Amino acid sequence: MSEAHSEPHPLTLPEDDLFGPDNLPYGVFTTEDDQDLRRIGVRYGGYVLDAGAVADAAGSPHAGLLQRPNLNPLMAAGRPVWQAVRAELRSWLTDPAHADVLTHNLIRIEDVTLHLPFEVADYVDFYASEHHASNVGRMFRPDGEPLTPNWKHLPIGYHGRAGTVVVSGTPVVRPRGQRRAPGETSPVFGPTRRLDIEAEVGFVVGTPSRLGEPVPQSALREHVFGVCLLNDWSARDIQAWEYVPLGPFLGKSFATSVSAWITPLDALDAARTEPPGRSHPLLDYLDDSAAAEPCGLDLRLSVALNGHTVAEPPFSAMYWTAAQQLAHLTVGGASLRTGDLFASGTVSGPEPHQRGCLLELTWSGRDPLGLPGGERTFLADGDEVVITAWAPGPGGSRIGLGEVSGRVHPAR
Amino acid sequence: MSEAHSEPHPLTLPEDDLFGPDNLPYGVFTTEDDQDLRRIGVRYGGYVLDAGAVADAAGSPHAGLLQRPNLNPLMAAGRPVWQAVRAELRSWLTDPAHADVLTHNLIRIEDVTLHLPFEVADYVDFYASEHHASNVGRMFRPDGEPLTPNWKHLPIGYHGRAGTVVVSGTPVVRPRGQRRAPGETSPVFGPTRRLDIEAEVGFVVGTPSRLGEPVPQSALREHVFGVCLLNDWSARDIQAWEYVPLGPFLGKSFATSVSAWITPLDALDAARTEPPGRSHPLLDYLDDSAAAEPCGLDLRLSVALNGHTVAEPPFSAMYWTAAQQLAHLTVGGASLRTGDLFASGTVSGPEPHQRGCLLELTWSGRDPLGLPGGERTFLADGDEVVITAWAPGPGGSRIGLGEVSGRVHPAR
Repeated sequence: MSEAHSEPHPLTLPEDDLFGPDNLPYGVFTTEDDQDLRRIGVRYGGYVLDAGAVADAAGSPHAGLLQRPNLNPLMAAGRPVWQAVRAELRSWLTDPAHADVLTHNLIRIEDVTLHLPFEVADYVDFYASEHHASNVGRMFRPDGEPLTPNWKHLPIGYHGRAGTVVVSGTPVVRPRGQRRAPGETSPVFGPTRRLDIEAEVGFVVGTPSRLGEPVPQSALREHVFGVCLLNDWSARDIQAWEYVPLGPFLGKSFATSVSAWITPLDALDAARTEPPGRSHPLLDYLDDSAAAEPCGLDLRLSVALNGHTVAEPPFSAMYWTAAQQLAHLTVGGASLRTGDLFASGTVSGPEPHQRGCLLELTWSGRDPLGLPGGERTFLADGDEVVITAWAPGPGGSRIGLGEVSGRVHPAR
Repeated sequence: MSEAHSEPHPLTLPEDDLFGPDNLPYGVFTTEDDQDLRRIGVRYGGYVLDAGAVADAAGSPHAGLLQRPNLNPLMAAGRPVWQAVRAELRSWLTDPAHADVLTHNLIRIEDVTLHLPFEVADYVDFYASEHHASNVGRMFRPDGEPLTPNWKHLPIGYHGRAGTVVVSGTPVVRPRGQRRAPGETSPVFGPTRRLDIEAEVGFVVGTPSRLGEPVPQSALREHVFGVCLLNDWSARDIQAWEYVPLGPFLGKSFATSVSAWITPLDALDAARTEPPGRSHPLLDYLDDSAAAEPCGLDLRLSVALNGHTVAEPPFSAMYWTAAQQLAHLTVGGASLRTGDLFASGTVSGPEPHQRGCLLELTWSGRDPLGLPGGERTFLADGDEVVITAWAPGPGGSRIGLGEVSGRVHPAR
């Protein structure tokens, strides 16, 4: 051990910091001095590390991948590179021998502007919470079974609009569209009256796959670069009128917010947990009963509306896992591209306060939420929604996921 | 008039050539000598003009936009540039004064390989044929109304998978997936038994729009760069099992083929035609009764299966127009990106031989098609499908759309 190791490191975080050395999520930032230069940053406590600059100063072979305006080249480089870069980052941030390279390359998070960290290729939204799907089924089809016959056999999903994925903090303008009042035959046009959130977890694909070649569940770690929080804003009245027979379209295409930080999948090893028991036998490509490691993730979400916590959805309750979603998405031969984003669907647990959307929390508006500023069924103009999450880390630590926030602006 | 004009032009096409001087579709090609250099080409008769090379030789201010590996930069440049480039191309190809620049820059179409001509941003598939939607409704919901209550009020659409859009000629591997036999409760897994085509027309967006700002019907020409033919390959058994409640997913995500040639929208002026009469009043943003020009397009499609024409779908019969689709897509605030592709949905006319998919042509397999090589309900391995189309051009000429073809390969 060198003498340097006994000196205090210039940047020591509290042990319970959500963004400590076992987390190291990636983002893209600019500073006020150089608003046109997008740089890759790594969050460390209340700081952002200029990853490209520090890699360059340290003579890293990966400096080129980190001196880019978005994460896509790093994401495309594959897992061995992700692991090597992660080890380097950890070393630069924690080993006093590297303390000199940190000088000038750590910026207070208050002093940066965060941007969409990757170019989204295709965006797929799943529907993987049994509690959510059952609740929605009970509301929309009160005379039928809560779940459609296919639900327990495959992870239902659909493609969303990649071009309207926006970074946390982007204002969400209340969309206008067609809705039809109960009992009417014709629709009217106007701002949505049932603007909702959907608290979700997103998985970001790094390594692409070839057209025609299915990706098995076991290859999740080779393909998925990291995890983000996601709010799939939804206009329930527009959605209800349009979605039969081809699924949601304008009701969900106006904005989908993602967190500015992408947490590496490797940072969530301690959060691995068994998914819920399966009530139906699964086809081979979806069977995970003999998986080498637990396929669920113990992420604890929290949804705040105007600063008041309205839900605490547990991701560990999700019926379908990310590995199953990946296997299903590709089993017909569809290829993956770097930047593909697939989201879990609304995260809802079994308890009323664990529901991840207002549709469920207010039971389609029947039971308004009491908030300090007044009741809410769906979102009002000016409302701010912030979704946060943490996961168990190594040795009792916690891994924070970057928040995803958004404020509702009035319709134009 | 200069003396040169009286000399015969080195490249004179027959008057009835489908790819004459009023067409000039764009594509991307390589040659055997230089397989890594993708170049923008313009089809002229049986030749491909190396557009970047000729622009450079002619000192065109647009040479930079044409010396690219795909059409996206040109598409993003906006309509005034599209018009200027089109005028230049026409001049180079037809004015004997420019005959010298054509030397070495015209390549026989047999000697090039064609590639996907643009990077697809988001892909949206509409459902705009009343005949198709009614036929499908009659088959899938025999006890209900053929059309869902929303169909006459909005152009129904959904997002497809942009990453699996492939160029004409790409083999289509029969997808595997879940299907459920009638009367069974659980699905089985295997190659689709009901592989189908959907003959469609695609519209390619050039000029982007801003998030939150709807694009009116009248702005179609400002945003849409051109038109392609499209085959939305569909696995009907996979689709039938998965699509309730969130729409088609794996049944349509394994491959979507587009023609290698993008015909400029301006080349289709003579094909403008009135759409069918509207049976229901439309909301303002969809009303086209007072449009400045006819909003339909008289494109005559032809579908050949193993060289035998099985359908001749008329695009003029489409209930919803491209302008209405564009207006609907953006009315909630969704933005457009360069490379967005929106397709019409299956083109079917009122007559049985005008139906654009095998599901309709064989009435869900009940009425097999007699072909010289044997009967067909759905596609067999080895089958080749070629969709072609032409439209009326100026002065009685015809504008050809590039074909979209594909051959079915066995499941892996």
